[in-house]
Amino acid sequence: MSHNTFGHLFRVTTWGESHGPALGCVVDGCPPGIRFTRADIQRELDRRRPGQSRFVTQRREPDEVKILSGVLEDGDALVTTGTPVSMLIENVDQRSKDYGEIANQYRPGHADFAYEVKYGVRDHRGGGRSSARETAARVAAGALARRVVPGMVVRGALVAMGEKQVDRANWNWNFVGDENNPFFTPDPASVSVFADYLDSIRKAGSSVGAVIEIVAEGVPAGLGAPIYAKLDQDIASGLMSINAVKGVEIGNGFEAARITGEQNADEMRASNDGKPVFLSNNAGGILGGISTGQDIVARFAVKPTSSILTPRRSVDRTGADVDVVTKGRHDPCVGIRAVPIGEAMVACAIADHYLRHRGQTGRQ
Amino acid sequence: MSHNTFGHLFRVTTWGESHGPALGCVVDGCPPGIRFTRADIQRELDRRRPGQSRFVTQRREPDEVKILSGVLEDGDALVTTGTPVSMLIENVDQRSKDYGEIANQYRPGHADFAYEVKYGVRDHRGGGRSSARETAARVAAGALARRVVPGMVVRGALVAMGEKQVDRANWNWNFVGDENNPFFTPDPASVSVFADYLDSIRKAGSSVGAVIEIVAEGVPAGLGAPIYAKLDQDIASGLMSINAVKGVEIGNGFEAARITGEQNADEMRASNDGKPVFLSNNAGGILGGISTGQDIVARFAVKPTSSILTPRRSVDRTGADVDVVTKGRHDPCVGIRAVPIGEAMVACAIADHYLRHRGQTGRQ
Amino acid sequence: MSHNTFGHLFRVTTWGESHGPALGCVVDGCPPGIRFTRADIQRELDRRRPGQSRFVTQRREPDEVKILSGVLEDGDALVTTGTPVSMLIENVDQRSKDYGEIANQYRPGHADFAYEVKYGVRDHRGGGRSSARETAARVAAGALARRVVPGMVVRGALVAMGEKQVDRANWNWNFVGDENNPFFTPDPASVSVFADYLDSIRKAGSSVGAVIEIVAEGVPAGLGAPIYAKLDQDIASGLMSINAVKGVEIGNGFEAARITGEQNADEMRASNDGKPVFLSNNAGGILGGISTGQDIVARFAVKPTSSILTPRRSVDRTGADVDVVTKGRHDPCVGIRAVPIGEAMVACAIADHYLRHRGQTGRQ
Amino acid sequence: MSHNTFGHLFRVTTWGESHGPALGCVVDGCPPGIRFTRADIQRELDRRRPGQSRFVTQRREPDEVKILSGVLEDGDALVTTGTPVSMLIENVDQRSKDYGEIANQYRPGHADFAYEVKYGVRDHRGGGRSSARETAARVAAGALARRVVPGMVVRGALVAMGEKQVDRANWNWNFVGDENNPFFTPDPASVSVFADYLDSIRKAGSSVGAVIEIVAEGVPAGLGAPIYAKLDQDIASGLMSINAVKGVEIGNGFEAARITGEQNADEMRASNDGKPVFLSNNAGGILGGISTGQDIVARFAVKPTSSILTPRRSVDRTGADVDVVTKGRHDPCVGIRAVPIGEAMVACAIADHYLRHRGQTGRQ
Repeated sequence: MSHNTFGHLFRVTTWGESHGPALGCVVDGCPPGIRFTRADIQRELDRRRPGQSRFVTQRREPDEVKILSGVLEDGDALVTTGTPVSMLIENVDQRSKDYGEIANQYRPGHADFAYEVKYGVRDHRGGGRSSARETAARVAAGALARRVVPGMVVRGALVAMGEKQVDRANWNWNFVGDENNPFFTPDPASVSVFADYLDSIRKAGSSVGAVIEIVAEGVPAGLGAPIYAKLDQDIASGLMSINAVKGVEIGNGFEAARITGEQNADEMRASNDGKPVFLSNNAGGILGGISTGQDIVARFAVKPTSSILTPRRSVDRTGADVDVVTKGRHDPCVGIRAVPIGEAMVACAIADHYLRHRGQTGRQ
Repeated sequence: MSHNTFGHLFRVTTWGESHGPALGCVVDGCPPGIRFTRADIQRELDRRRPGQSRFVTQRREPDEVKILSGVLEDGDALVTTGTPVSMLIENVDQRSKDYGEIANQYRPGHADFAYEVKYGVRDHRGGGRSSARETAARVAAGALARRVVPGMVVRGALVAMGEKQVDRANWNWNFVGDENNPFFTPDPASVSVFADYLDSIRKAGSSVGAVIEIVAEGVPAGLGAPIYAKLDQDIASGLMSINAVKGVEIGNGFEAARITGEQNADEMRASNDGKPVFLSNNAGGILGGISTGQDIVARFAVKPTSSILTPRRSVDRTGADVDVVTKGRHDPCVGIRAVPIGEAMVACAIADHYLRHRGQTGRQ
Repeated sequence: MSHNTFGHLFRVTTWGESHGPALGCVVDGCPPGIRFTRADIQRELDRRRPGQSRFVTQRREPDEVKILSGVLEDGDALVTTGTPVSMLIENVDQRSKDYGEIANQYRPGHADFAYEVKYGVRDHRGGGRSSARETAARVAAGALARRVVPGMVVRGALVAMGEKQVDRANWNWNFVGDENNPFFTPDPASVSVFADYLDSIRKAGSSVGAVIEIVAEGVPAGLGAPIYAKLDQDIASGLMSINAVKGVEIGNGFEAARITGEQNADEMRASNDGKPVFLSNNAGGILGGISTGQDIVARFAVKPTSSILTPRRSVDRTGADVDVVTKGRHDPCVGIRAVPIGEAMVACAIADHYLRHRGQTGRQ
Repeated sequence: MSHNTFGHLFRVTTWGESHGPALGCVVDGCPPGIRFTRADIQRELDRRRPGQSRFVTQRREPDEVKILSGVLEDGDALVTTGTPVSMLIENVDQRSKDYGEIANQYRPGHADFAYEVKYGVRDHRGGGRSSARETAARVAAGALARRVVPGMVVRGALVAMGEKQVDRANWNWNFVGDENNPFFTPDPASVSVFADYLDSIRKAGSSVGAVIEIVAEGVPAGLGAPIYAKLDQDIASGLMSINAVKGVEIGNGFEAARITGEQNADEMRASNDGKPVFLSNNAGGILGGISTGQDIVARFAVKPTSSILTPRRSVDRTGADVDVVTKGRHDPCVGIRAVPIGEAMVACAIADHYLRHRGQTGRQ
C-alpha cells in the first residue's frame, strides 16, 4: 500500500478533498469483461450518501458518479476492458465559510495538527483530504470489486452504538437495507433504541462511536498469501485506513485471547462433497492468512465524531490556547455511514487476493 | 506489502520453514551509517527464543544470527552501507518425526487445510512456512529498525492472559525484562497469578490466548501518510500479520466505540516550547493516520495455541473423519513470545514511515 | 511499476482512452509546498499538443488541463499540499467514425491484435488506451516533476528523423523551442531538410521514425539505487513505456560496445571546489546506477507511425485476410511530439529518485 | 522495482557483496508445484561462472548453490511449495588485498565515486555490491523463472564484440553452448576472430564492449500490461539493470527509427489454425507492450570493463589527482559472461508477466 493507493493486482488510487471541485478514484487492474451498470455503482454511493436522515450530516451531496474510462457500452450495460476505470464525483454543497475559524485552530481528535506538522501546509476546508468524503471514492471502487469474485456477497451491519448493542438473536440481513432503518442495524428491535439514544447525543452537542461487522460470503478457499499479505492482514489494513477507525477484529477477535485452545478450535468433519465442514467459525474464515471457504467475518470500531458542539480545549497555529467548537454539519455517529465503506474495503481486499491467487497458482 | 515482503523504503523480506536448514531475512533500504553490533541483534532474538522457561516450547534453538551482507566492520561494531542486510538463522533442533501423523491430517485452527487448498502441496514439518519460527526473522529485522529512528524506544508487555489481566496501577517497564519474569508482564504482582494459571492450562493439555501492548516512545510527529498508508494502518497490518493474531487496537481501540466525543477528544494546551501538549492519549499517538509526537500505543490479541493435547475433531487428506492430538513441543500461550515480535513489527513500520516522510517532505 | 502507475515516492497513475470523455493522471507523493501555476502545466501540454503544424496529426484538441485536487491557491499560484494531485484533460475532437472499419481489423504494427488476445475485448476507437493521447497525462505529471528537484532542467531534442540526422556542431538549445522549428531539432540547418523529407513521406502516404535525445542538467550526485532501481534503468523503463519506442541508450549507449576501456573511461581530475571534474561523459551521468552530478543523457528510438495510407496485409477478427489502410488523422512522424513526452518521463524518474534518495539517506 | 527487488508476482530480491561471506537471492511468488533439480540451477550458474577460459576473470569460484527454503524433496527432484525460495552462494576466492589501493581511489567508469557520494560509506572490496558477482543470484533466480512458463525457451548469444560482429547467416543455436566456444557466439566462424581480437585487447591491458541478443521462444500472446508495465519496458528495465549495460533494443530497435512505416510494419496473414501468421518480426514479438506470440527479441550493449591495466586519470578521496591502474582479476570483455545473465533477466520478466496476466484475466 502506498500513500493513496491500495491493492496489488486490483489497485485503487483515490484523490480529492472535501471542498475541492471533485473527488474520485482510478481502479487499475480490474479484469476485462466485467459487466455492470452505472446504477450498480450509484446504488452503493447512495447507501453512503449524506443527508438521508436526521442522524447523519445534513450536507446535501448528490454524489453522482461519472465513469470516465476503462469501459465500453454494451447495450444498457458497461463492460470493463481491462484498462483503468476512472470514476469522478463532483462536490456540490461545499460551505467553506463554516470552516473559517478552523483555518487557524487545531480541532481535538482531528488531523489538523498532524497534517500541519507533516506538510507545513494544510487544506482546512472541511478537513481537506482527511475528510470522510474521500470514502465515497472507496465505495465506488468497492462496487466494482464486488463483481470480480463470482458468487461473493459482502454485507455489513452496525452491531453497537456507544453503550447500546444489537441482539444477535434478532439478526436479519434483509432488515439492514430497510427504508425504515437509518442505522444499518440487523436487529429491528434496536431501531427505536438507537434513535432515542442518538437523538439525545445529538441534542447534547455530542457524538458517539460504533462497531461495524462485515461478512463476506461465497469467498473461495485459498485466497491470501503468506506471510505479509495475509488475507486478514489486508482486510485489517483496509478497515484501519477508514477515517476514525481505532480497532479491527477477525472472527472472534479479542475474545480469542480470553479462551482456551479447545474452545477456540474450529473443528471439522467430513461432508458428502469431499470438502470438510467446519463446526464453528471463530477464525472468521481465515487460517494462516488464507481463506478456508467459510464466511469471512471482520469487525471494526469507529470512534465518536471529533467535530462536536461542546467546546474542547486546544491551541491555535500561533501556539495560543483556544476553545474549539466545531459547527459545520456533522454526523453525530460517523459509524453509521461507515457500513458501506467497510463493505467496500473488504470487497476490494478480497478481489485483489482473488486475482493474486489466480496469478500465482493458476487456480480459480 | 507483498507475499513475503513488507515496507516501502525500509523493506523486509523473510524466508524459511520451521524444519528446513535455515531461515532468514533481507532488509533492503536500511540507511547507510547505522552502527550496531551482532550482539544487538542477538539480544532481541534471545528474548524471543524458545526453551527459556517451562511456559514456552521446549524446542532448543540457539537462534544464532549470521550477518551476511550490507555491513562493514568498524572496530567492534558493524556499520550499514546502504545495501541489503541479509541475516540467517540456522534451524538446529528439528524433530520432524514428531509430525509424522500430521502430514495427512488437518489440525484444527492451523493453516494445514488452507495451505493445501491454496498450493496443492504443503510442507507439513512443523507447519512449514506457517510456523512461528518465521518470526525470528522479523525480530532480527526489527532490531535494525529500532536504530533507524533516532531516540525511538519501542517496548512491549503482556497485559492479559486468558481470563487474567495485569493491574495497570502496578505498571513497571523495568520489570518486563526481569529474569524472574517469564511472561513479559509489567505487573510484578501478576507473575504468580499467571504462573499458576498457565500451569493448570498446560497440565490440562490446553492452551490460552493473550493480549500484548506495544508502546513506541520518541516517535517524531508527522510520520504516516494518507490515505492508504496511515501509520496506524501499517502498524495494524504488521501486527495482524503475526501468527495467531485476531485483533488489533490503536490507542483506546474498541473502547472508543463506547464513549462520547467529549470523552474521547484528546484536548491540547499550549506549552512553553511552542509545541502543544496533549492532555490525554486516547488516539494512541496517531491522528488522521499521522503521528502527533505522543507515544504510539497499539494492542493485539493472540489466540490460544492450536496445537493442544486435547483431541479435536477434524478430517484428513482422504476426507475421512479423524481425531487430532498435536504432540510436538508447543507453547501453552504463544502470546508470551509474541511480545518481542510485536515490538519488531511496530519498529519496522515506524522506521519505514520515518524514511518515507523524510523522502516526501525533506523533514527529519 | 504497475499496470498504469510508475514511480515509488513520486507516483504517477494515468487513465483514459483516446475517444472517451477525458483522460488524466493522479500524481501521488508530490512534496508539499511546490509552487506552480496552471500555465506551467499547460505550457508543457501545448508543446505536445496536436494540430500545430502540417507535420503532426490534424486532430484539434485544446488539451486544457483541469487541476482537481492536491493544491491550495496562494495568490496567482498554486501550492501543493502533499496530497494527490489529480489532473484531467477532456477529449474534444473525437471522430470515432474514422475508425469504423478498424473495429474488426488488426492494424499491422498496432496493439489491436495484442489487446484483443489479452483482454478478449478492445476499445478500437482511436486505439483506446494504446493511443498516444495517453501521453498528455504523462506530460502534465512531468511538468510537476520538473519542480521537485531544485535547479534541475530537463530538455529534449530530435536528433534524427529516418535517414536524416542533425549536425551536432550546430546544437542550439534555444532554437529547439523556436516558433519556426516544428521539429524540436537543435540544428537550425536541419529544418528545411526535415521539412522536405517529411513532406515527401507524408505525400507518399508513409511515415518515418526518429531518435530523441533528453538531457537533464542540475541533477545532484547520488540519485539512483542499486541493484534493480538504477537511475538509468528507471529512465530506460520510462522511455521504453512511451508508445512506439523500440530502443533506449544512456550516454554513449551502443557506441560503448564498440570501443575499448581506455576510450570509454570518463577520466576525472580534482577541482577547486573539492568535487572531481569529469573530462568526458560517455557514461551519460550515471555510474553503477547512481548519478554522478554530470548531465544525465538518454536517447530513444521511435518507430515510424503504424497508421499509414499505404495498404498493408493483415487479418480481421474472423480470421480472414484483409488489406488495411488507416485513414484517421495521424502524425507522419510520431517521434516529433515524443520530445516533450520523453522529457516528462525523465523528469518523473529523477524526481522519484530524488525523494527516494532523501528518504533512505537523509541527504538532499 | 525497488532497490534490490524486481518483479510483481514473481519477485526476486538479491543480496550480497563481492567479498562478503556469501550472496544470494530470495524468489517470492514462485508458483507451487514447479519441479526442478539443484543441478538445473547449477547448470545455469556454471555457464556464468568465472575462470572457465583465458578470456574471462581468473577468479576461481565454484558458485555452488544451496537451496534453503521453499521446496520439498520429491524423489530426486525438488518441488516448489509456493513459499519463498532462498538460494545462497558462498564466496570462496576473495583476494581483498588486490584492492588495497582502491579503497581510497575512484576508479574511472566504476561506481566508486557514486556510491561514496550516495551513502558516505562504501565497501571497496571488489566493488562491494556493485560487483558483477551479484549477477550470480540473478542467474539462479532465472533458472527457476524458466520453468514457470510452460514451453518457453530463453536463449542468448553474443552478436558483437568491439569492432567485430557475427555473421547472422551462420547462426547456429546449438553452437552457442559448444565446449569449444568460449564466447557464446552463434557463428562458428567468429570464434577465431574473437579469440585473436580479445587476446590482443587483453595483452594491451585493455578491454572491450559487446552486444548480446536474447530470444525467448514459446511465449504465449497476451503477456504485458499497459501502460507502465509493458513487457518490452520490463525487459528493458531488467537488462539495463545489469552491470555495464548502456543500451537496450527490442526487435529491430534503433533501426526502426531509420525506416518507413511500410518497411517496419509486420504484416499478417491468416493461417489454418485461426491464429494470424506474422510475415516478419521487426516488433520483436511485442506490440503495445503486449506479446503477440512471436519470438521475443531483445539486444543490449555492454560497455568495456572499466577495470584495466592501462593507467587512467582520476582523483582520490582526499581530492588529489591520481593515476589508477586496476589490477585484480578482470574480464577483458564482461559482455561474454553477460549472456546467461541477460537470459535470466528476460526469463524473470516474462515469468512475472505470465503470472500477472493469469491473475488479471484468468487466461493461461
